[in-house]
Amino acid sequence: MVTTAYFDNSATTKPCAQAVEAAENAIINCWGNPSSLHRTGNEANAIIEQSRGIIADRLRCSPGEIYFTSGGTESDNLAVLGAAEKMKRHGKKIVSTEVEHPAVYDSLSALESKGFEIVRIAPRADGSISESDIYEAVTPDTILISIMAVNNETGAVLPYECAKKAALRAGSPALVHVDAVQAFGKLPLKPSSSGVDLMSISSHKIHGIKGAGALYVNKKIKIAARVYGGEQESKLRPGTEAVPAIAAFAAATQALGDINTEKAKIEELKKYMLLRFADIGGIEINSPENASPYVTNVSVIGVKSEPMLNFLSANGVCVSSGSACSKGKKSRVLRAMNLGADRLDSAIRISFSRYSSQEEIDLLCEMIARAKQEIYSK
Amino acid sequence: MVTTAYFDNSATTKPCAQAVEAAENAIINCWGNPSSLHRTGNEANAIIEQSRGIIADRLRCSPGEIYFTSGGTESDNLAVLGAAEKMKRHGKKIVSTEVEHPAVYDSLSALESKGFEIVRIAPRADGSISESDIYEAVTPDTILISIMAVNNETGAVLPYECAKKAALRAGSPALVHVDAVQAFGKLPLKPSSSGVDLMSISSHKIHGIKGAGALYVNKKIKIAARVYGGEQESKLRPGTEAVPAIAAFAAATQALGDINTEKAKIEELKKYMLLRFADIGGIEINSPENASPYVTNVSVIGVKSEPMLNFLSANGVCVSSGSACSKGKKSRVLRAMNLGADRLDSAIRISFSRYSSQEEIDLLCEMIARAKQEIYSK
Repeated sequence: MVTTAYFDNSATTKPCAQAVEAAENAIINCWGNPSSLHRTGNEANAIIEQSRGIIADRLRCSPGEIYFTSGGTESDNLAVLGAAEKMKRHGKKIVSTEVEHPAVYDSLSALESKGFEIVRIAPRADGSISESDIYEAVTPDTILISIMAVNNETGAVLPYECAKKAALRAGSPALVHVDAVQAFGKLPLKPSSSGVDLMSISSHKIHGIKGAGALYVNKKIKIAARVYGGEQESKLRPGTEAVPAIAAFAAATQALGDINTEKAKIEELKKYMLLRFADIGGIEINSPENASPYVTNVSVIGVKSEPMLNFLSANGVCVSSGSACSKGKKSRVLRAMNLGADRLDSAIRISFSRYSSQEEIDLLCEMIARAKQEIYSK
Repeated sequence: MVTTAYFDNSATTKPCAQAVEAAENAIINCWGNPSSLHRTGNEANAIIEQSRGIIADRLRCSPGEIYFTSGGTESDNLAVLGAAEKMKRHGKKIVSTEVEHPAVYDSLSALESKGFEIVRIAPRADGSISESDIYEAVTPDTILISIMAVNNETGAVLPYECAKKAALRAGSPALVHVDAVQAFGKLPLKPSSSGVDLMSISSHKIHGIKGAGALYVNKKIKIAARVYGGEQESKLRPGTEAVPAIAAFAAATQALGDINTEKAKIEELKKYMLLRFADIGGIEINSPENASPYVTNVSVIGVKSEPMLNFLSANGVCVSSGSACSKGKKSRVLRAMNLGADRLDSAIRISFSRYSSQEEIDLLCEMIARAKQEIYSK
């Protein structure tokens, strides 16, 4: 029996061996400042540029379209706020959804308080977003459409590829931003042929280490910088680059398996888990049918999220309620789906990675069954 | 004879063993998301909070006054732009200097383009800043004074401690920000008793690793956030924390030696270097008398900076021209000092760390002497 089962991979993942090695090499051997014009600096700069090339290859774009940031949150902020600043002379309307990550959602709220009009498309009851709602929301004065690829709480796969079509049909100049933090490495992504101008990705969600993310910026567009200073990242994101985290990001990207092979394995695991859940009984599935198999949101009716989390954690099982960033608050995403109070109060998120196993699921199910007996709330 | 002499410690420093170990431990053993409410998350969160305590101890402030960022540039941006946003209802005037790091200088330029009035105090011919100029510049409508502690190009020590006194004397509500990136670990710093409201520091300048900085924010004041998203860092700086880089930052802080003992050693090295320079001849010192001994800017008259850098680098010696962030452009700081063209064109920066040695200086001097013979420009 395994003693620990980690099912919080949407929050963060265990660094893979390749990422650990790349970070250590950068820390110990290539610690120069990439901007320094001597040998020690050049070595560090070479790591940055190699890493940029590796990530660009994965997104099938040019290296010059990849900008390193400190993580997914900074990438989302730069995309949304940088695009709004650049596009504001064309209009003040931005289309997004109710289910975005706080890094997008709250950036849009900040813009709202500065006079932008934010249209947030509500999810269907199952958490999915309708294409026709996107077409309907986008009007000629829309300057930005920001839609995530995979929702971090439910695994819902969003139809972001229709965003640019909606903009063209409306005759709007809107840029399209996709928060692909939960999709990178799990869905095939090719922003340039999906009408995507800006795409956010993060290292620590794909078995890299914390401290690096990237923003894809289509070479045909420009956005405003959010940080001022040196000339790093073509002045779009100044500041000495986090070389170890960037090196690990590239190594983790190279270590990603074949998307379809891995997805098939994860789908089997999910199927197995749902069968076991059916045996236990009283567990409602809050994720849509077409969800990414990596993320499953369920409600163990009658057991509130927090005591469940604590019970599972004490027994070596890690799951989450909602997104890690919200630290246990009631989920805005599930509320937008109009789930009843019993499902809202007892929701937990189980998120897989390529390291997840059937043995871990066995432990999870055993502990959920025990939790139901021991902390069933009347 | 040593084969490599590293004199670009103002750009970045070699990680110390303690920082390497702390980063590795965080990467391998404490890779959870600090916001996750389970054991794996709690372990990572414990590292963040321990690190915050260690850095607060060093600045003799409360842990709650330390906010982690991705580095010095982000800290400077957050301080300057966040303070201006918060204070703008009191006025639009900001006092600073001509010799600030681009992270402050360019943030102020961005504010200038939005209607703020920026008064930048010029340095004296030796690169130092006069106290009386600060008193004169600050008026009742000044909302922010941003003055660095130690200049990154010349080592000039700036009289930032008079800033709050100047504000009080003028009857201004101005907040005081100090970019202490080059001073942390090298000068005694106690923001709370120096009238400092905001202080920026960075890890990779003190033998930590790249990807972490911090901003001290006096608990009596508030500034506006620049990034929106999760609840990390009390919502002042959302985004998953770079745990490995933060752990290394704290370890490097703990590994800092006694400031006076180390400074005495560095002063001896500087004295030795200047004697050797006098023997070589034709080398002008561009740093003020009272400069921090860690940073010395000199001009080897007749040998332009770039060929000198290349020659030294090819021979195992790393120095820089200006700040690393400016990638070889002519120094704004030296221009503000009104140096003649011959000194401007041939300026190089030699910056020490606690690992610097007399043997390294011997190699530097040997190579400078050779460079003078081999690439003397007519």
